Order: sequence, then structure tokens, then C-alpha cells
Amino acid sequence: MSAPSVDAQVLADKAQLKIQKRKRFEAVFPLLVEELTAYLASENMPAEAIEWFRRNLDYNTPGGKLNRGLSVVDTVEILLCTDAATGRLSRELTEPEYLKAAILGWCIELLQAYFLVADDMMDASVTRRGHPCWYRVEGVGNIAINDAFMLEAAIYFLLKKHFRSEPYYGMLLELFHDVTFQTELGQLIDLITAPEDVVDLSKFSLTKHHLIVVYKTAFYSFYLPVALAMRMAGVTDESLYKQALDILLPMGEYFQVQDDFLDCYGTPEQIGKIGTDIFDNKCSWNINVALQNATPEQRQILDDNYGKKDSESEKRVKDIYNQPNIDLPARFHKYEAESYQQINHLINSLPESQGLRRDVFRSFLEKVYKRSK
Amino acid sequence: MSAPSVDAQVLADKAQLKIQKRKRFEAVFPLLVEELTAYLASENMPAEAIEWFRRNLDYNTPGGKLNRGLSVVDTVEILLCTDAATGRLSRELTEPEYLKAAILGWCIELLQAYFLVADDMMDASVTRRGHPCWYRVEGVGNIAINDAFMLEAAIYFLLKKHFRSEPYYGMLLELFHDVTFQTELGQLIDLITAPEDVVDLSKFSLTKHHLIVVYKTAFYSFYLPVALAMRMAGVTDESLYKQALDILLPMGEYFQVQDDFLDCYGTPEQIGKIGTDIFDNKCSWNINVALQNATPEQRQILDDNYGKKDSESEKRVKDIYNQPNIDLPARFHKYEAESYQQINHLINSLPESQGLRRDVFRSFLEKVYKRSK
Repeated sequence: MSAPSVDAQVLADKAQLKIQKRKRFEAVFPLLVEELTAYLASENMPAEAIEWFRRNLDYNTPGGKLNRGLSVVDTVEILLCTDAATGRLSRELTEPEYLKAAILGWCIELLQAYFLVADDMMDASVTRRGHPCWYRVEGVGNIAINDAFMLEAAIYFLLKKHFRSEPYYGMLLELFHDVTFQTELGQLIDLITAPEDVVDLSKFSLTKHHLIVVYKTAFYSFYLPVALAMRMAGVTDESLYKQALDILLPMGEYFQVQDDFLDCYGTPEQIGKIGTDIFDNKCSWNINVALQNATPEQRQILDDNYGKKDSESEKRVKDIYNQPNIDLPARFHKYEAESYQQINHLINSLPESQGLRRDVFRSFLEKVYKRSK
Repeated sequence: MSAPSVDAQVLADKAQLKIQKRKRFEAVFPLLVEELTAYLASENMPAEAIEWFRRNLDYNTPGGKLNRGLSVVDTVEILLCTDAATGRLSRELTEPEYLKAAILGWCIELLQAYFLVADDMMDASVTRRGHPCWYRVEGVGNIAINDAFMLEAAIYFLLKKHFRSEPYYGMLLELFHDVTFQTELGQLIDLITAPEDVVDLSKFSLTKHHLIVVYKTAFYSFYLPVALAMRMAGVTDESLYKQALDILLPMGEYFQVQDDFLDCYGTPEQIGKIGTDIFDNKCSWNINVALQNATPEQRQILDDNYGKKDSESEKRVKDIYNQPNIDLPARFHKYEAESYQQINHLINSLPESQGLRRDVFRSFLEKVYKRSK
């Protein structure tokens, strides 16, 4: 067996590092579950209520990609450990710094769990991450609504426990409040624009798509991890938060457009599932671009076939997507290139003097663009 | 027609004052709806999302008894306007003071709306305050879950808008966080102890009943209004919050025990509805007292008939409640007298020097004890 090439070695090391980072982050969660269940015990809650809450936390919080939570840790590391002169990481996070960053990361994962438990009920979904959705687990049912509430309550319990004496504690609370409200607004527009049972493409538009993806996904998945890390790193200049927002919301929007595109054009191996956006009457980027460019005849075919639960109808919609005057793949690649350029431009315009670093956004950019899944 | 007696006149004046207070409080809510919908408009939300949110707020927030919200205003008035020398109100709240107190009051009503929209779904209830439950309104369905979330988000939006610059802002946030978590814990115990479909009286106990009523009701309905008012009035001595809690939780528990008792023993005219606790397998004070005192034969009858959806079974349970060895009415009156005495004792032990006033609790006591409904 020959030695691996230098490039292959670098890649292997990177993959190894990523696994280690994930493991270290995952190891923090059980400590938080202990804190939360210990609180219930201290309030004399019955054993079955404590066990129920533990199971709710364990079933719904870990198990995803953990990108949002890990981003908080990565960002705190870049902000606290970069040497200004060399622009490189010059130290590791101390154990207390790491723990604080990881707790903020898990708070985003709890926020996501809160949304997903509820979304699955509202969308009548069947599985999540390869398991039955929580509300479909034997004995749970509509109790899942209260369980979702409790996942949210866990966030504020943990923030109080670990950040109460920090000068930025109030800002953390407001970030979670603001972003939670924004995400719920995005969910509302999505629910009333694209109900699964009533197909009405006249409700769709690229403007609505933009609002849905920015509010429902980009704020909590892209802006929140960075903003939390900036607070923890002591960034107080409010204009820097605005600049971070101006980079991260378009990045989140690109991420979702890519997701929509791959739902139709990615292979099941690439995306880890079979896309069902056309079946499910989703207000996706694809259908909105098609609607914007369709001839009246094409529009009629879309109206007649979108959101229908059969493969023939789905195929007719996909055929329209590929017509020369629409050509979704070409439009996606154009959008992708432009978006990449625009975001790079914003990153390069960012001042690095007041405690923010371009690497924060570059590391996001790397993860998001040209991902295979 | 003869002139009304002095007593009758006093009562009529009191009733008139109560109506006026309620009207003034109700008049604040539309202003808050305007602020909330204006925020959505400022974020470029589509008109139909703004209208949906407005309808959610209007349908679910006003329309109840508003006791919790009004209690905040009453308590702030007692704390800010009592003359220390005479012990009487010596002025009215200024307009800005009134508005702030009323906003805190509406924040509790929003919290209650958040819980009730969700509880109705979890209990599969049909009507609320004489109208269909929100999730049963045409076109709403499971979107009600997200609507409940948005009612909660409205709280933190309003607190940020109106209290951000106050020194006690952080304490308001924590009060809402803590009490929300506690209420959800109470709801969890209730849901897993007394599911409507599986009757198992061995899960019941007076200890569980105590936990359910204190956590599910007393914290947010009794402690929260007073604690918010104390924060607004500038009370900073934490021991006074503990003392308020020690009075208000037993008061809330008494309130709920009375509610349980009247569900079985009150006339429909008295309680404004027909009691269904026995039908619905509720973990009520009545059944727990009966279980604690039943002979094995009586216990068997309770096991066989509780939670059954027929009047014959209900009657058999009620018969047990009235057996001489159980005699619920006698036990209730004994409990009521003892509870009243204990709470009065606590109120009279309260120091009035550090900004808290016994009248706060006396005014609660008046409303709660010996109420006819």
C-alpha cells in the first residue's frame, strides 16, 4: 500500500477533525439534559414527567446535521482565537469558552427542535431524520405541542443558568426572541401561501419565496449562530451586526434556493432523500421561476399538474422546468454564480478592525456553496 | 320608586367602577394590535399574513374574564398610589403609568391565549368562551400551533418596545420565561396523569393534584400578575417576591380546588356551564379526596365509573362523593375555612415597610374566596 498523497492526507485530516469537533459538541448535550432534568427534580416533578421531558429532549434535539450549533463554536473560535497580525488561529478556546459557545449552539438546536416538532404536525409529516416524527410516536400525539413549548423553554432556562451574569445576557435573550418571531412569521407565510390541500399558484411569487426562505430559515440558521457568537466575543458595535445580517441573509437564501433546485435536480444519493416539492405544492424557487417565465400554455400545464400526488403530473411539471424558455438548470447556475460573487464582494468589504473577521463568513461560504447535499 | 339603600348604592357604584375599569383596560388592546401589525408591515409581510395575525390576536386574546390582566393594573395602583400614612389610595395612576401596567396585563392575557389555543388542541375541545376553538375555525386547523407560538412572540415584542429602557426589563423577561416553563410543566403532568382515553385512577393523588394546579394555574394566574406589578413599582427586595409567592400559590390552589368542587356541586347558573370533570377523567380535587378516603368497595365503583362518558356512571361517582365517610361538601368547607385562615395569617405577617402592601393580597382574597362562580 502506497502512502496517501499530500492532498488526500489533508482531506482525510480535515474529515477527521470535523468528526472530532462534532463528537466534542455532541458530548455537551447530555450535560444540559442533566441540568434540565435536575431542575424538574428540584421542583418535585413526578418521575414520569422527568422521564418524559428527557425523552422529548433526546428524541428531538440531537440527530440532525448540527450545522447551526457547530457554527456557533466555529465562529466563537475565529473571533476569540485569531491572531490579528497573522490572521490565523493562534490558540484554542479554553474549556469554559468552549462550553459557553457549545451551550449557545445547543440553544439553536433546541430552537430548531421546537420548530421541527411543530412543523411536522402542521405538515402532517411521517418521518424526520429516519425516525417517526415525535407526534407519531406511540402515546405522544398532540402532547407534542406542549413538548415543543418545553423545548423552547429549555433555551431560556439554559441561558439564565449559564449567561445570567454576562453583560451580553440581555442581548442573547433579545436575539432569541426576535429570531423566533421572524421564523414564525416565515412559517405563517409559508402555511397560508402553500397549503398542501389547496393548490393556487396565483398565490406564489418570487417575492413570497424570498420572504419565506429569509424569515423561515435564514434568520435562525445563518444570522443567529453568528450573532450569538459575536455577542459572546464581546462585539458591541451594532453596525457590525447589520453588516453580518446583510451577508448572512443572502447566503441563507442561496442555501435554500440550492435546496429547492436539488429537490428536483439532485440524485437521491446526492440529497439523501427523494424530492417531493412538486407533489407537496411547495412554494419553491423552481416553480416561481417557472411561473415568472411561462407562456400561457405552459402556465396552464403548471396549474393543472402542480401539487398533484401522482408521478405523471410531476413529470409534466418537470418537463416545463426543462423547456428552453425556462431552462431551470441554466437559471440556477446563473443565480448561483451571481449570488456567490455578490456575497464575496460583501465579505471583502467588511472591516476587520472592530472584532469581526472575514473568515467567519468565508467558513460559512465554503460549507454552503457547491455542497453536494 | 324609593331611593336605593346606602348599601345597595355602594354595591351599584362598585359594579359600575368595575365595568369602567374593564372598559379602560380593553381599550388598550387595539393599540397593541396596531403596534404588532405595524411591525409585520415594516418587515414587508404580505397583507394576508398581517390580516391573519390580527385575526389570531383578536380572536384569542380578549373575550375572557381578564382577571389576570386587570390584577396587574390594580396591583400597580395599590403599590404606587397608596399613601403610607393613611393606607389609602391618595392619587390615580398617571396616564403613562396606567398604560405600562395595562401592557403588562395584556402580556399575561397573551400568555394565557398562547396556552389556551394549544390546550384546546391537546384536549380536543370544541368551544371556548362560547365560540369554536381557534383550531376549529374554518381554514385554521393545525396552523393554530404556529398561531399559538406567535401569541407568545407578541409578549416579548411588546416588552421590548415598551420596557427596554427600564431597569427591571430583564426581570420582566425572566418572570415570563420562568412562569411559562412552570405552566408547561403543569400541563405536562396533567396530560400524562389524566389522558382522556385511558382511565387509571392509580395515577392520581392529592400530591399530583397539588402539583398540577400550582404549576398549571397558580404561577401564571396568581403570582405573575403581582410579581410583574412589583417589578414595575420598583420592588427589588427578592425576599418580598418569595413572600408574595408563599401567599399567592396557596391562594391559586384554593381557587382551583373551589373550581373543581363547583364543577360537581355548583348549579349551571352558578358556574356558567355544566360540569364535565367526571366524564373527562379529570385529576380533580374531588376524585382525589374520594380516592384517599374510599373503602375498597367504593374504590371499585370509582374505578369502574370514573371517566366514562355516560350519566349513569357519573351519577354513581357522585353518589360515592356524598357517602358519609367521604362527604365532599363537608371536606371542602373545612378545607376552605382552613385555607382562608392560613392565607389571612400570611397576609397579616407581611411587612409593609419595603414597598409591598397587604391590600394587594386582600384585594385578591376578596375576589377569590366565596365567589359564586
